Amino acid sequence: MPGPIQAIERAAAVLRLLARGSGRLGLGEIAASLDLPKGTAHGILRTLHGVGFVEQDQSTGQYRLGAALLHLGTSYLDANELRSRSINWADTLAARSGEAVRIGTPLESSVLVVHHVFRPDDTPQTLDVGAMLPLHATALGKVLLAYDAELASVIQRGTLTSLTRRTIVRPAALARILADVRRTGWANETEECMPGEASIAAPIRAPGGLVVAAIGISGPVDRLCGATLTPKPALVRDVQDAARAVSRDLMTAG
Amino acid sequence: MPGPIQAIERAAAVLRLLARGSGRLGLGEIAASLDLPKGTAHGILRTLHGVGFVEQDQSTGQYRLGAALLHLGTSYLDANELRSRSINWADTLAARSGEAVRIGTPLESSVLVVHHVFRPDDTPQTLDVGAMLPLHATALGKVLLAYDAELASVIQRGTLTSLTRRTIVRPAALARILADVRRTGWANETEECMPGEASIAAPIRAPGGLVVAAIGISGPVDRLCGATLTPKPALVRDVQDAARAVSRDLMTAG
Repeated sequence: MPGPIQAIERAAAVLRLLARGSGRLGLGEIAASLDLPKGTAHGILRTLHGVGFVEQDQSTGQYRLGAALLHLGTSYLDANELRSRSINWADTLAARSGEAVRIGTPLESSVLVVHHVFRPDDTPQTLDVGAMLPLHATALGKVLLAYDAELASVIQRGTLTSLTRRTIVRPAALARILADVRRTGWANETEECMPGEASIAAPIRAPGGLVVAAIGISGPVDRLCGATLTPKPALVRDVQDAARAVSRDLMTAG
Repeated sequence: MPGPIQAIERAAAVLRLLARGSGRLGLGEIAASLDLPKGTAHGILRTLHGVGFVEQDQSTGQYRLGAALLHLGTSYLDANELRSRSINWADTLAARSGEAVRIGTPLESSVLVVHHVFRPDDTPQTLDVGAMLPLHATALGKVLLAYDAELASVIQRGTLTSLTRRTIVRPAALARILADVRRTGWANETEECMPGEASIAAPIRAPGGLVVAAIGISGPVDRLCGATLTPKPALVRDVQDAARAVSRDLMTAG
């Protein structure tokens, strides 16, 4: 069986590079970052420009991601069965808990948010769909890590970035927490990702039992947690009920 | 100068194909649609799978778009200056008009929605960001066509699809309307895209005067139009004010 096609892998690397940081890079920076000759990088960029995957700034000559990717991203969501089967349950969970709901799947050692229901009040909120969240510092991420040994080992081998003074950065401590998640069937974090914020999540299982995603709520610590900073049992139950409902719907899918 | 890289163009064609229809295709269908040998198509799909741009259904073996594209699409939006500079003006327009606001740019002979503000009431609405709308049957599209001769000629050469009994399908009629749009500086449609719905739009100009996008409102005919089905002048003025404000902001950008 022939190996992967190098030109496509390089094109994907260019796109991933442009998705980071400010999102605008010159030819020289792209070539240097990917360790490619300038001529090779230019050929890739010209081809990506031709198919609408990158755009070029007229005045600076810098490259950025192209509009065609937005449409592909939306098309991914449209065809995503997990998302379509969980939309109603996510709405129900938001209404019942009074908190924002997010559904995440693993992508490149992070949590990719594939669905987001705003907290049902009038506060201004930003849509998180398409955002990447840290695995080790979110309840969604802990759920995904708890049930995916390969993902967990990748994370444990790297450095656990400290985001707040409560972020769990010691691999042994994280391993103990993941074992708890497997035992109880839910995960939480309190100010481990953002000061003042907490989250609770539970696993979504595909037919066959494999955990493919997590659903959870997030919001102010004083609303999600009791006096001892542990999550309120009623909210944990709501999250687990929603996760089970989505899993059941996936089971009877097709 | 060497030509575009064939493997990347073919990979882009596979992704565009998967973005259409149900979003799930088998190897044979993909190879046949793109007129490629199965082995070639398989090599492309395996490489796209490796970089997360396609996923494969475990049970059916069918391919669909991958989660990495969602993140790239969101990253495109994050780096999009047009969008970041127009968000506040779009909110203002929605508040002032009481209608839903959308901003569109041209993509592949369609309008790509890059921003969408819901109508400020409690009706359930679906986020249109990333959706593709017909150029000839929307106010946003007519604006883009009016100021882009190349786009207009592509559309005029093809068949103008009839979406409702009011859709303009005769090229000569559309050309006259586009001349009006250039003269007045705004476009509208009444039930040409969806029965009961109307829309009004105006051009957003980049520094130098080039029309790069359109901003507009859409909503029920009886709210947007007067007794003769022509748009209410106050709403036209609101849309033009918003378009000018965004254009001015782009002018002073950087």
